[in-house]
Amino acid sequence: MPTIKGERLIADLRRLAQFGRYKTGVHRPTYSPDDMAARRWVAGRMEEAGLDPVIDGVGTLLGRSRASGRKLLTGSHLETQPYSGWLDGAMGVIYGLELARTFAEDPRSAGLGIEVGAWADEEGHYGALLGSRSFCGEVDEASIDGARGRIEGKPLREALAEAGLAGRPRLHLERERYVGYLEAHVEQGDTLDNAGLRLGIVTGIVGIHLYRIHFEGQQNHAGTTRMAVRRDAGVALVRLAAEIDRRFPSVAGPRSVWTTGKITLDPGAPSIIPGKAEMLFQFRDVEPERLALLVRTIEELVRQANAQGPCRVTLEPVSRVAPSAMDASFQQALESAAEGHAPKLHLRLPSAAGHDAQIFARYLPSGMLFVPSIGGISHHFSEDTNEADIVLGCQVFADAAERILREAAA
Amino acid sequence: MPTIKGERLIADLRRLAQFGRYKTGVHRPTYSPDDMAARRWVAGRMEEAGLDPVIDGVGTLLGRSRASGRKLLTGSHLETQPYSGWLDGAMGVIYGLELARTFAEDPRSAGLGIEVGAWADEEGHYGALLGSRSFCGEVDEASIDGARGRIEGKPLREALAEAGLAGRPRLHLERERYVGYLEAHVEQGDTLDNAGLRLGIVTGIVGIHLYRIHFEGQQNHAGTTRMAVRRDAGVALVRLAAEIDRRFPSVAGPRSVWTTGKITLDPGAPSIIPGKAEMLFQFRDVEPERLALLVRTIEELVRQANAQGPCRVTLEPVSRVAPSAMDASFQQALESAAEGHAPKLHLRLPSAAGHDAQIFARYLPSGMLFVPSIGGISHHFSEDTNEADIVLGCQVFADAAERILREAAA
Repeated sequence: MPTIKGERLIADLRRLAQFGRYKTGVHRPTYSPDDMAARRWVAGRMEEAGLDPVIDGVGTLLGRSRASGRKLLTGSHLETQPYSGWLDGAMGVIYGLELARTFAEDPRSAGLGIEVGAWADEEGHYGALLGSRSFCGEVDEASIDGARGRIEGKPLREALAEAGLAGRPRLHLERERYVGYLEAHVEQGDTLDNAGLRLGIVTGIVGIHLYRIHFEGQQNHAGTTRMAVRRDAGVALVRLAAEIDRRFPSVAGPRSVWTTGKITLDPGAPSIIPGKAEMLFQFRDVEPERLALLVRTIEELVRQANAQGPCRVTLEPVSRVAPSAMDASFQQALESAAEGHAPKLHLRLPSAAGHDAQIFARYLPSGMLFVPSIGGISHHFSEDTNEADIVLGCQVFADAAERILREAAA
Repeated sequence: MPTIKGERLIADLRRLAQFGRYKTGVHRPTYSPDDMAARRWVAGRMEEAGLDPVIDGVGTLLGRSRASGRKLLTGSHLETQPYSGWLDGAMGVIYGLELARTFAEDPRSAGLGIEVGAWADEEGHYGALLGSRSFCGEVDEASIDGARGRIEGKPLREALAEAGLAGRPRLHLERERYVGYLEAHVEQGDTLDNAGLRLGIVTGIVGIHLYRIHFEGQQNHAGTTRMAVRRDAGVALVRLAAEIDRRFPSVAGPRSVWTTGKITLDPGAPSIIPGKAEMLFQFRDVEPERLALLVRTIEELVRQANAQGPCRVTLEPVSRVAPSAMDASFQQALESAAEGHAPKLHLRLPSAAGHDAQIFARYLPSGMLFVPSIGGISHHFSEDTNEADIVLGCQVFADAAERILREAAA
């Protein structure tokens, strides 16, 4: 059983967190200089671990193994949400790196191939799960041409060119090369931490629907335009958002979540009635039927808003990711490894966050391991996990990976 | 009776609209390069008209008259709201310029002193009515030190330095120099246009209260954080805004208006629960008692929001401008002139928009003349007024100014 080196693992994670450091966390948007520097640094560490790293045309970093036979693909992502945590994504990449090193160092496991991917833009600055979708052949050139940054609207092509990636070929999955895909991640919720557990075996990953909702009214002077004749796009937005707040609890499942993450009033000045407004609205659930009900509900609320007037409301679907199940034998391998190192301190649970594993699950047997997030805090610079849990998780991950590779070879 | 030159007036207005031209309107924020270029261009026209122009330490342009005796101060402002109209402010300044030229050209009126001010930042990019308040001695150096741009937060001192104004002295009103203050402006509402009238004589100007309302919750992951434990600052904002929408109609007067012009969710990403949120909320009325009731109402709604939780809501007053009355004899002079040129096509009405005249009314007899806004549209690039109404308004303005000056000299 290959034994990982906990100090080396933690040191690499701490070093990686210096790229885009913000307070106790990290600000490393996709293709930012800090993000690209982090990719190059991890590529260097991959080389030292005996992997052959390559960065592709959408910024995905893949460290390829020279081992013969089918390999286990591992990985996660390196970019972060704005002003976010140091482990989200980064931990899964460094786990893969640590496995590759550990397996190579032990003659008994040196022949077991571990490959490590840092899939670009899982966080969706330009397109959710972009790198893993591109790797799996789900992204054509036209959709790259059309993609823009969600927050500032910069064309993806421009961002790729600025990052020095223009013209690079994109990598594509060779399915026969791999026995499957295994990803580790911080839970990001509070289920493990609240229950005093140390490991989570993911059963499935929620589907996510994201919409941009547009409101069109009439821009005008905020003093001289009587209330009765206004067509205030901001008021229309507030009314729809309040209806969502009122109606969604009655149609939601026990694990449904919904969020308005961004609101913009145009032109956004104190003395001007907004002529346009926009909100980003997202919901998630692991059950397809529940997602369908939530879709029908938001469509109905938008229809009602248009029927009431006086502003025009448009529901624009930005992205839809279907829920996906994890492979049963991978869950078994992770659970056995967890029971071996932390008896009874593990739990099977669905993932309420989206992950690259949900894309890979369409093409390869896939599995995911969670470690606890302290207080369930995530997508915030104060996100953290106890170092002992980080190290334990990596060892369990290594054991499961070894088992999966040996069973595949048997 | 001095006769203004309509073609010259329109030509100057069209030329001025080239500075920061945007579609059929103008984008000329205070202290922007376009704004400063416009000020310098008007200063040149003032010199040609025989005035002595000076730009002061907050960007106010004053064209001083060399006439002996007390003068009539006229003016308005040159900067615009974002992507706004070509006449708002600009028309009042060019009316003043046209009066100065017209009076100087006619030997019978050459001795009547007209001075023209372009008061900086009436539109409040850095502080509502900044130039006229500074000119009237209501702005101390400390408040200039502390002021920031409302939209991007740039310090006013920095903006002044970039505009080349750092270190310039500020001009101050010499009350004994003037018989009063007279301002012309587009109505910005639809009262005159709807009624088929051509001139409005302003009886008083509304008071304006502006607040920044802060919401503080807990930033977190939009997938893994259960609805039950969220402290979503954006949801708190939507709930308060919906309460304003529900409650304000029942406490408002017939001419009260209220507007949420800007909403910001922080950090503003689709997969992050907003930890902070902010809105700019403004209301206006001409009656002090009504304003006091609206103040009590917003304070009560914020108290209720805090009592309900789970987010903390803070009401920050940004600015309060009291309502003000126009001078009775100035109203009479304007009305007589209006009746002379457009019998029965004029109306006395309050101004629902704030104007520099409301500041001057505290120190000098003051009056205001309105011309119609087509469709009542204002603070939008499509704002417009018929050229015939612009020319008529200027002639009425000139007649009233002459009458006021002659009566003062009598």
